[in-house]
Amino acid sequence: MKKLTDIKTDFPGWYQDIIFQAELVDSSPTRGSMVIRPYGYAIWENIQKILDKKIKVLGAQNAYFPLLIPESFLKKEAEHVEGFAPEVAVVTHAGGKKLEEPFVIRPTSETIIYSMFSRWIHSWRDLPLKINQWANVVRWEMRPRAFLRTTEFLWQEGHTVHASREEAMQMALDAREMYKDFVENYLAIPVFSGIKSESERFAGADETYCIEAIMPDGKGLQMGTTHLLAHSFPESFEISFQDKDGTMKVPYCSSWGVSTRMIGGLIMSHGDENGLILPPKIAPVQAIIIPIYRNEDDKKTVLEMAEKLEDLFEKLSIRIAIDNDETKTPGAKFFHWELRGVPIRIEIGPKDVAKNQVVLVSRVEKDKAKKKSFVSIDQLEKALPDMLDTIQRKLLETAKVRSEKLLEKNGWCGSAACEATLKEDKRTIRCLIESKEHTNCFSCNKPSIADVIIAKAY
Amino acid sequence: MKKLTDIKTDFPGWYQDIIFQAELVDSSPTRGSMVIRPYGYAIWENIQKILDKKIKVLGAQNAYFPLLIPESFLKKEAEHVEGFAPEVAVVTHAGGKKLEEPFVIRPTSETIIYSMFSRWIHSWRDLPLKINQWANVVRWEMRPRAFLRTTEFLWQEGHTVHASREEAMQMALDAREMYKDFVENYLAIPVFSGIKSESERFAGADETYCIEAIMPDGKGLQMGTTHLLAHSFPESFEISFQDKDGTMKVPYCSSWGVSTRMIGGLIMSHGDENGLILPPKIAPVQAIIIPIYRNEDDKKTVLEMAEKLEDLFEKLSIRIAIDNDETKTPGAKFFHWELRGVPIRIEIGPKDVAKNQVVLVSRVEKDKAKKKSFVSIDQLEKALPDMLDTIQRKLLETAKVRSEKLLEKNGWCGSAACEATLKEDKRTIRCLIESKEHTNCFSCNKPSIADVIIAKAY
Repeated sequence: MKKLTDIKTDFPGWYQDIIFQAELVDSSPTRGSMVIRPYGYAIWENIQKILDKKIKVLGAQNAYFPLLIPESFLKKEAEHVEGFAPEVAVVTHAGGKKLEEPFVIRPTSETIIYSMFSRWIHSWRDLPLKINQWANVVRWEMRPRAFLRTTEFLWQEGHTVHASREEAMQMALDAREMYKDFVENYLAIPVFSGIKSESERFAGADETYCIEAIMPDGKGLQMGTTHLLAHSFPESFEISFQDKDGTMKVPYCSSWGVSTRMIGGLIMSHGDENGLILPPKIAPVQAIIIPIYRNEDDKKTVLEMAEKLEDLFEKLSIRIAIDNDETKTPGAKFFHWELRGVPIRIEIGPKDVAKNQVVLVSRVEKDKAKKKSFVSIDQLEKALPDMLDTIQRKLLETAKVRSEKLLEKNGWCGSAACEATLKEDKRTIRCLIESKEHTNCFSCNKPSIADVIIAKAY
Repeated sequence: MKKLTDIKTDFPGWYQDIIFQAELVDSSPTRGSMVIRPYGYAIWENIQKILDKKIKVLGAQNAYFPLLIPESFLKKEAEHVEGFAPEVAVVTHAGGKKLEEPFVIRPTSETIIYSMFSRWIHSWRDLPLKINQWANVVRWEMRPRAFLRTTEFLWQEGHTVHASREEAMQMALDAREMYKDFVENYLAIPVFSGIKSESERFAGADETYCIEAIMPDGKGLQMGTTHLLAHSFPESFEISFQDKDGTMKVPYCSSWGVSTRMIGGLIMSHGDENGLILPPKIAPVQAIIIPIYRNEDDKKTVLEMAEKLEDLFEKLSIRIAIDNDETKTPGAKFFHWELRGVPIRIEIGPKDVAKNQVVLVSRVEKDKAKKKSFVSIDQLEKALPDMLDTIQRKLLETAKVRSEKLLEKNGWCGSAACEATLKEDKRTIRCLIESKEHTNCFSCNKPSIADVIIAKAY
């Protein structure tokens, strides 16, 4: 295995190395698409498990809509087709014949879902209607990059319909808050909640809300978006409902999604010169036990203790495993699991067994004195979960300090002309945020309407 | 809502009614595809949850491979392309341009997965390799029917690679056993484990194993297949490994899958003239509480008891809900939940509160005396789970008796000519089974090689 590219001098090179060497993905023969390998997919499964519960708490129910959308549907909402037409993959032939009407592979599912909503919504009693879908989508990508920008990606998309604009907007805000909570408290990535400027809005939305993170290279990464769609889609798909007063009204909508892109943010946020670092709450393996022995007698007692601990912590719902690959040295195993970002390594040798202790090694501590600790078996049941909590908290804190340092916050007058001046050095207004520390526009110096975060974007 | 078509005189008509009226699916503007509504999707989620654990017990890890497969890949395995070419959907344009090489939407993923396996397998140390994928696939369908045969469907596909043919075959057999266990003990559908005749084999397989169920109309439904792929794909995709003895060898493979089609089997197997009947282990709602009251005082005490019971059983991990829709009569609610196949209805009225009891109504009992029972609250914690177990067992027993009655089992000489005689009345050999009760072929009367199940197929 080749040495990891230096994270300090070549961050993109480091990213490319880490995703392949930690076996998160492999490049695929399908241009722009990635193969998500078991270790990478296990992260996605953990994300799904946690988010799915939160989505259900918001009142949404999961459903599944067709992958293929009649091309004419995409054209029903004018802004939407303008936004997505250049990126879609088109099925022109199927079942051995040329199709009368081509299908596009869903780049997002508003059009097909709203066409169904028009059948399901008749009365105020049918509202609010809250649907979520876990699915794959395809957007043809010219400059693909694993997790961050791929032709096919996995995501969830929530689509809701409400009687009032206020309610739809609240839904979009609640979904953003859910994403912020998830990204900060599980992925340990600090984010800014904001609103997109008109030029960065979702195709067909009245308002796009977002959470944005600042990566270690200073670039902004959009971690999730939620949209107030208002009347655009309901009108295009002829959705109306009879309100309590008997009149027919057009409802208001929201949509919101996060994707496998979050894993890209996770890798970049926490990794170091030795590889990946995964926050405990999302790590497929939270603690790896490395048995160390030189003879059969030691092997027996060491493995005995290893298995006892594995049993104990599995019962406590900690994701723990023993690496007892006999073809590898302990050193090679340390390297292997460090590269994969496992939060805690548990070393057990014959001397440890004799002393009724283990060695805990934290993946996040740089200071050698702090990195290793000897913990007696009796205290381990408390010490191990505590250490996982500490690591989780420390990762968020470290990322927060760094993010604040790299952040460019400024005022903005609200004009597209001033926004456009940023494009020269490929920067954009990532979002408008709630604070108002700056009184003047970064460009024209006129009064500012809101603080904005400015960054190059992933 | 219109009356359900009579199940006895028009089974297909009943099936069509039930899937729409119970809100399992809706037809979609994408020809041949279905929209899976929340109630139908909740069944799929339960299936996934249970099967995913079993798949992991078999040692397979989940991963994700691209939806789009270069057209040339499909052609690498001769039999495979012959089998699937007529059914694939082809992407010819993307990103606003005609593609140099078209992509097919995966009809199954052997080709793309084996192309990756060829990179991952080098030595005997890399074997066995066991991968599973939960995904959508597309096979262009001329006569679509919700769940049973749709252009797009959801499934899992397991793909494994082994050093020996025996091991690959054992894997295919173990996967079949896992499916049989799941279908019988969770979906309550009795199945026959068998082997497909050559003419019904998967395109590219050495041997196809299957589980087959007999539906109430006497037709056979293939519920799952597992394949011994032997050398076909490894050779086409140049997969080889260095064995312990230092020589290079070609490995042996298996693949196996089940799909949303199982939900079609579930609906047909257990439904009756009043609608769906769901086995408790798979039902999204296992027990529905219907509060019955005529005035505000009664409402208060009845709802109080309903909520107490909901809390209690949620803690016991029973999927329970209260229907407190005030716009509906209790009778309308009975109808609603019967149609949706909820195993147990719990009725609570003011008299029940006074007597500290509830009324339990079983969805499966036809006999009025047995259908309803009064259970005191003190006994409910035991009585409710017991009743769920009874319903689960009874559904399997009833389906077993019926299946045996409808079954056509006969001997077969093994010749394709005799098999072909069945095609006149659209029947096929569903599978060869282990029993050998028949000594002669159903057609030519020569000695039989194995008992076969003969049926029209879904």
